[in-house]
Amino acid sequence: MITIRDVAKRAGVSVATVSRVLNNSAIASKETRELVLKAVSELGYRPNANAQALATQTSDTIGVVVMDVSDPFFGALVKAVDTVAQQNHKYVLIGNSYHQAEKERHAIEVLIRQRCNALIVHAKALSDDELIDFLNQIPGMVLINRIIAGFEHRCVGLDNVSGAHMATRLLLSNGHQRIGYVGSSHPIEDEVQRRQGYRQAMAEAGLAVPDAWYAAASPDLQGGEAAMVELLGRNQHLTAIFAYNDAMAAGALAVLKENGITVPQHCSLVGFDDIPIARYTSPKLTTVRYPIISMATLATELALKGAANTLESGVSHCFMPTLVRRHSVAAG
Amino acid sequence: MITIRDVAKRAGVSVATVSRVLNNSAIASKETRELVLKAVSELGYRPNANAQALATQTSDTIGVVVMDVSDPFFGALVKAVDTVAQQNHKYVLIGNSYHQAEKERHAIEVLIRQRCNALIVHAKALSDDELIDFLNQIPGMVLINRIIAGFEHRCVGLDNVSGAHMATRLLLSNGHQRIGYVGSSHPIEDEVQRRQGYRQAMAEAGLAVPDAWYAAASPDLQGGEAAMVELLGRNQHLTAIFAYNDAMAAGALAVLKENGITVPQHCSLVGFDDIPIARYTSPKLTTVRYPIISMATLATELALKGAANTLESGVSHCFMPTLVRRHSVAAG
Repeated sequence: MITIRDVAKRAGVSVATVSRVLNNSAIASKETRELVLKAVSELGYRPNANAQALATQTSDTIGVVVMDVSDPFFGALVKAVDTVAQQNHKYVLIGNSYHQAEKERHAIEVLIRQRCNALIVHAKALSDDELIDFLNQIPGMVLINRIIAGFEHRCVGLDNVSGAHMATRLLLSNGHQRIGYVGSSHPIEDEVQRRQGYRQAMAEAGLAVPDAWYAAASPDLQGGEAAMVELLGRNQHLTAIFAYNDAMAAGALAVLKENGITVPQHCSLVGFDDIPIARYTSPKLTTVRYPIISMATLATELALKGAANTLESGVSHCFMPTLVRRHSVAAG
Repeated sequence: MITIRDVAKRAGVSVATVSRVLNNSAIASKETRELVLKAVSELGYRPNANAQALATQTSDTIGVVVMDVSDPFFGALVKAVDTVAQQNHKYVLIGNSYHQAEKERHAIEVLIRQRCNALIVHAKALSDDELIDFLNQIPGMVLINRIIAGFEHRCVGLDNVSGAHMATRLLLSNGHQRIGYVGSSHPIEDEVQRRQGYRQAMAEAGLAVPDAWYAAASPDLQGGEAAMVELLGRNQHLTAIFAYNDAMAAGALAVLKENGITVPQHCSLVGFDDIPIARYTSPKLTTVRYPIISMATLATELALKGAANTLESGVSHCFMPTLVRRHSVAAG
C-alpha cells in the first residue's frame, strides 16, 4: 500500500507538506502543490480514512446494528440508512446481532471503536440500563423500534399494540371469534406488544383466548409453517389467524393450502410489516404496514444531528401502523 | 471521547507505556499493568480501531460491494460474508452499487480508503480493465459472480449459461415449444448468459425464438409483473416461461393468476436463484439453484487468504447450478 511517506519522497518534500497540500492548507506554494499532486497521481496514493478518522476523532462511516441483514425487513432498514448516508457522503458499517445480548453489545462496541459517530441501533436483548450507558457516551446513537423513557428524542418506535389491535379488530368485524395467533419465539418486546394488542381486542369483544390458540416459532417463513402445523394439530376449529409478521403469515398460508384449507374462504389471515412478499402471496396478504423506511430514514437523520450536537429534545417519534386490506380476509 | 492520553494521565505513566500494556508487551511491570488497566476501566476507554488500523496499515473490517443489500439474493450474500467475518473476528463494511459503474467504482474506492484488506466485490458495470487495476493494487480483493481471465484464482463465478440451458431443457422435455423468456433490463453479463443458455437449448431443439417471446424489466417482483403483462399483451400463445430470477418469476406468476391462467396447468414457469420465496409461492416454484451462500463463503475465505498473501494460484472457482423441481412445471 502506498503511504504518505512514499508521496513525500517522490515529490521531494516533507510528509507535513504533503499533508498540508492534501488538506488544502493555504500555506503550500503553487509549485509545491503541483509537485505533490503529481506524485499522488503517479503513485496512485489514496488518503488513509483511518488516519483522517484518527486526526478528527470521527469517521465518515455510519454504524447500523440489525438482527439479520438477510431478513427482508432489516434489509429495507439498512437500505434506508444507506440512502441517507449517501446523501451525506457517509458510508455504512453493519453489525448483525441475531437478537442476542452478547452480540448486540459486541456489535455496538465494534462500531464505537471504529469511531462511527452516528449509530442506528436495533437492540432488543440488551437492558434499558445498558443502552442508556451507551446513549450517554455516544451523542449520535439513536434506537430504532424501541423507546426508552428519558431518551424519547433519540428513539424511533412503532405502536405495536395498536397495530395488533387493529388487525384483530378487522378479523372480529368480519364475524370471526375463534382467532388464533401465530407468534414469534424471540423473547423481544415486539412479540409481547403484538400479543397484548391481540388479547386486548379479543377481551374488548368479550372473548377469552385459550392457550391452545397460540403457537410460537422463529419469526420467518419456516417458523410460520411450524407454528401453523402446531395450531392445526390442536384441532381448535380456528376460522382466522393473526400472524406476528408477513414472513410467518406466508409460511402459515403454505401449510393451510397443503391441508386443503382455502384462504380466505375457510380461514382468514392477517400479517404484520407489509414487506414486498405480502403482495405476491396468493391470495395477496392483508397486513399491518410497518413504515420501516420512513422510520429508518428519520433515525439516521436524528443520529447525524446527534453527532453534530444539533438534536432537538422534548420531542418523541412513535409511528402508527396502518391496515393494508388485500385478499386474505373474508367473512367468518 | 476518552483518549489514550487521558488513560496515561490518570495512571501517571506515559502514553507509550499505556500502549505497551494494551498490546500485552512483556516490558511493562505487573504493577504498571495494574495501574493502567485500572485507569482504562475507570475511564471506560476503548482502543481506537482507526489508530490500530493506521499503525498496522490494515483494518479489522472486510469490505463487500453488492448491487442492493435489501434484495434477498444480495442479503444472503452479505450474511455469508458476515458469517466468515465473525469466525475471523472481523467486521463487515458494505457498499451498495446498484449496477452503476460510477457507484461500483466509488464503493470500492471507499473500502480501500478504509483500508479493508479483504474485499468481496460484486461488480457488473465496471470494465475488466478497471477491475484488473483494482485487483493488482489490492491482493485481498476477490470478485464474486464474475470471472476475469488471468485472475481465475481470485474470481468465484457461476455457469449461468448451463443453468439457463437446463431450465429450458426441462421445459422442452415436458413437451413445450412456445417458451418465452422474462429477462432483466440490467445490462449485465448474467442476463446475456442466461438468455444465451435459453436460446442455445431452443436452437438444439430446432426451435427459432421470435423477438416477441422475450420481454425485459427490472430484475424484481415488479419487473416480473411488467414483463409478463408485456408478453401476454403480445398474444403469442406461450405455454411456458423461463424467468431471469425467482423474484421476476413470482411477479409473472401473480400476473398469470390474475388473468385466469393457472400454473402449471395452463402455463409452466421456471425461475433462477432458489431464494426462499421460491418455496412459498403457490404453486412452489421450479427453479435453478444458485449456490450463493457457498460461493460467498468461498469468496470471503479467498479474500482473507489474498490479504495474508497465502492465496493459491492456478485454480479456478466456477460453480455449477442445479435444478430444483417443485410444482410450477407440467406437460405442455
